Amino acid sequence: MARWEPNTRERLVRAALDLFIERGYDATTVSEIADRAGLTKTTFFRHFPDKREVLFAGQDVHTRLLTEAITAAPEDATPLRAVRAALDALTASFRDDRRDFSARLRPVVAGHGELQERATLKRARLADAAADALRGRGVPGPAADLAAGLGIRAFYQAYDQWADPAERRTLTEIARHTFDELRAAMATLD
Amino acid sequence: MARWEPNTRERLVRAALDLFIERGYDATTVSEIADRAGLTKTTFFRHFPDKREVLFAGQDVHTRLLTEAITAAPEDATPLRAVRAALDALTASFRDDRRDFSARLRPVVAGHGELQERATLKRARLADAAADALRGRGVPGPAADLAAGLGIRAFYQAYDQWADPAERRTLTEIARHTFDELRAAMATLD
Repeated sequence: MARWEPNTRERLVRAALDLFIERGYDATTVSEIADRAGLTKTTFFRHFPDKREVLFAGQDVHTRLLTEAITAAPEDATPLRAVRAALDALTASFRDDRRDFSARLRPVVAGHGELQERATLKRARLADAAADALRGRGVPGPAADLAAGLGIRAFYQAYDQWADPAERRTLTEIARHTFDELRAAMATLD
Repeated sequence: MARWEPNTRERLVRAALDLFIERGYDATTVSEIADRAGLTKTTFFRHFPDKREVLFAGQDVHTRLLTEAITAAPEDATPLRAVRAALDALTASFRDDRRDFSARLRPVVAGHGELQERATLKRARLADAAADALRGRGVPGPAADLAAGLGIRAFYQAYDQWADPAERRTLTEIARHTFDELRAAMATLD
C-alpha cells in the first residue's frame, strides 16, 4: 500500500462517524462519507465493502496484535500469562488521543442493532483468534477457549471504562486491572 | 395466544428451513415461506419480523428457561451449580426428535454471514441474560459473567456435538460432560 493509505482510511472513518452522529447511521450514504472526507466513492470502496465496516476498520490489526503477542510469549508462559501479554500489546495501540473518538463511537454503535451485531461478531472473532493462537502453543482446547474468553472480556470491560472522557488511566492500566479482577473472580467460582 | 399458535410458528420455521436448503437463504422470500407453510404473509409477520428471525424463534424460550432455572436454584447453590442446573433445564427442551432439524439447520447458518452474526448475537444475549440472573442471586458481576460465559460455552459445544446425526447421547448428557470438562480446564488456568 502507498504511504498515504493509512491516512485515507482514517479520514473515511472520521467522516463516517461525524455523519452518523449528525444525520444518523441509516440516513448516511457512502457517497456522503466519501464527500465529507474529500475523497471519491471509488476510493471508499477500495478500503471498505460498505458503510458498516468503516466502524470496524481496526478488526484486522487488533486480531494481529493479539495473536502475535500470544505466539511470541515465553515458551513457559501459562495461558493466562500469554493472554495478559497480548492484552498489553492490544491496548497499547489505543493511544489516549483516541479516547474522544471512542467516546463518540460508543453511543452510535449502542443505538443501532446492525452495528451492535457487528460489534458482537468482532468480539467473538477476536476471542476465536486468541484461542486459536493459544492452541498453537499447545494449550488444550477448553483451556484455550476459557483463557481467550477471559482476556477478551477484560478488554471490553476496560474499553468501556476508558472511553469515558472523565477517565484518566491508560487503556493498558485499566485492562490489567479488569484482567486481574476477572482472574480473581475465577478463583471464587465453584 | 390461541391453541394453534405454536404449531403455526413451527410450520413457518420448518418451511423456511426447507426453502433455505432448497433455494438458498438469499433467494427465498417471506411469501414463499408462508406459501410453503400453507399460511399467509400476514400470518408470517404476526410471528416474525423478517425471514432471518424465523431461524432464531427459540431465543425467548431459551432465555426464559435459563434465567428461571438460575433464579430457582437452591439459595446455597454456587454460581456454577446454578448454571449447571440451568443447562439441564435448557437442554431438556431439545428433544431427540429435533436432532435432525438441528443437523439441517447448522450448515445453513454456517454458510451465511448474516445468519452467523445473528447466531453470535443470540449466544451473547443468552450469556448476558444468564449473568443478569446470577447477579439477581447476589453473585458479584465478574463472577456472574464468567460463570454464565462458561455455561453458554458448554451449551454450544454440546449442541454442535448433539446435532451430529451419528450422536446417540441426549443433549443434556453431552452438555453435562462439556460443562464438567470446561470446569476442570478452568482449574488448570493460571
